[in-house]
Amino acid sequence: MVEAHKVEIEDAVEAVKKIEKINHIYLVACGGSLAFLQPLEYIFSKEIETPVSLMPAREFSTRDPKALGSNSVVISCSHSGSTPETVEATQKGTDAGATTIAFAFAEDSNLEKAAQHTIHYSWGKGTDASDLNTGVAYTFGFEFLNAVSPNEKFVRGVETVERLEKSVDKVRKQFAPTTAEWTKELKREPLIYAIASGVNSGQAYSFAACWLQEMQWINAGYIHSGEYFHGPFEITDYDVPFIVAKSVGPNRIMDERAAKFAKRFSEKVYEIDEAEFDMSDIDEDLQDYFSQILAGAVYRQIAEGFAYQRGHSLDVRRYMWKLEY
Amino acid sequence: MVEAHKVEIEDAVEAVKKIEKINHIYLVACGGSLAFLQPLEYIFSKEIETPVSLMPAREFSTRDPKALGSNSVVISCSHSGSTPETVEATQKGTDAGATTIAFAFAEDSNLEKAAQHTIHYSWGKGTDASDLNTGVAYTFGFEFLNAVSPNEKFVRGVETVERLEKSVDKVRKQFAPTTAEWTKELKREPLIYAIASGVNSGQAYSFAACWLQEMQWINAGYIHSGEYFHGPFEITDYDVPFIVAKSVGPNRIMDERAAKFAKRFSEKVYEIDEAEFDMSDIDEDLQDYFSQILAGAVYRQIAEGFAYQRGHSLDVRRYMWKLEY
Repeated sequence: MVEAHKVEIEDAVEAVKKIEKINHIYLVACGGSLAFLQPLEYIFSKEIETPVSLMPAREFSTRDPKALGSNSVVISCSHSGSTPETVEATQKGTDAGATTIAFAFAEDSNLEKAAQHTIHYSWGKGTDASDLNTGVAYTFGFEFLNAVSPNEKFVRGVETVERLEKSVDKVRKQFAPTTAEWTKELKREPLIYAIASGVNSGQAYSFAACWLQEMQWINAGYIHSGEYFHGPFEITDYDVPFIVAKSVGPNRIMDERAAKFAKRFSEKVYEIDEAEFDMSDIDEDLQDYFSQILAGAVYRQIAEGFAYQRGHSLDVRRYMWKLEY
Repeated sequence: MVEAHKVEIEDAVEAVKKIEKINHIYLVACGGSLAFLQPLEYIFSKEIETPVSLMPAREFSTRDPKALGSNSVVISCSHSGSTPETVEATQKGTDAGATTIAFAFAEDSNLEKAAQHTIHYSWGKGTDASDLNTGVAYTFGFEFLNAVSPNEKFVRGVETVERLEKSVDKVRKQFAPTTAEWTKELKREPLIYAIASGVNSGQAYSFAACWLQEMQWINAGYIHSGEYFHGPFEITDYDVPFIVAKSVGPNRIMDERAAKFAKRFSEKVYEIDEAEFDMSDIDEDLQDYFSQILAGAVYRQIAEGFAYQRGHSLDVRRYMWKLEY
């Protein structure tokens, strides 16, 4: 049986194929969904010449980019399909004559009304990685690339998603004792910085903004590995905690440099080293792209570890969904 | 007498004119210089269809964007002209056959060797705003726009830079007592968040990363006004300080919403409201673009206020320029 999202992806890609020459791809969303689209920005910018921009949804709407028009593609995401800024941005794309493609978990949402094409992903414990948001986004991403610039690498990309669960599961098992230890050590920290670059930027950003600030009320900030040396590194001290993602991509040199420096002066540097991941099921030329999904499993374990250690459930909110704002 | 940078700008713009169709503009730098280029990304994306990307310098080099080639323009900046990552990124552009244009204060730097065109700005107390980095970048930016898409608005943009000093001076005088008060109140804070969006994003980013983290060793983070509601706002509490820039551009709705919410739950919200700036010397359709330069004067006053209140000179560093890293 073909999964529903595969048919939805096929429809969306068919629509993209009809654009004679795509002038711009806009990736627009909010918070965790914005972070979730970031890897597509990274991959597209490396694989095709078509320009791609990642933007907070309302920044996109208010900025009103000049290039937005009938040759543009607007890709958005909202888990509930109800995030007003994302619905608005998607509608803006549709109104401008762009091809609009939305990712959502919920069915029959306002986002679905605003978008020409909606791709639904699955959610919840036990869901296979290929059916979760990132798996579905990657299947779409590689199908999209293969449509606009055919390459067997992209076909392998789609195939890799299918067997992704195994790799995610291995990383989860491998890092379970490690992250349990880390979160025990870090549980009383009032502030934690997340350092990363390249394809991991979205994960590190959402770790800081969603897992820590939103779901644990821990002060946090995302620092780009390269940018660390141009300001932020001056706050490094023996007791300042950094969680550094070390990529397996070409940007690893930045991540390693940041981790190495941080470790000279801070006693609290924790490294998510993707070179330690078992990626034997992923072709070498695709490991950089897929590594962030595995890193995401580790970030989630850290968040779950904090929730357990701090008795602060990841479901607790004081403002979100509780107030009008 | 025509200032040197005007001749340099003219040369650079002439070179850009020779490109039949620019396929992509890359803005690459590090830290404060990256932040300084951000407004150009904002303005270009609103005024022309040519794609423009802002990227940390080494992210650009290691990412190796597919679109980079002989029809690209790479614009970089390094005050000293010696930042290795920026020199490397500029050289990468030159090697790829792109038109490379660098901003620098220093003469005869490595950056100047790597770039085909270098535009030198002035620096130091008493320098007219039109000759400082941002004034020169705006003169270049509007000349660039006028070359690729002639419009009297861009001519007025260049003219506005000429008389900018007066507006900056007025804002400086207006906010001096305010920022003195703010920094007295905030001087013992261990952590301060900077919220902004649109054309102010670069200023708020460099306020957090350079003025606070680097030059005051105060923990800090930049939060996009729209993103605030999708994670970060959950850390809002009565004692969490936020400095919010409220734009005069179309994104003001985001800034106002963030400031309004923050004020409901935090007693420490400080607003840089650009609607309070005297911008009578700036045409209305250009005020959004120029407002960030005025906001920058306020951010700088806050930094100077902290330096005074905390006895921590803005020139003190523990790592930068002191160690090999």
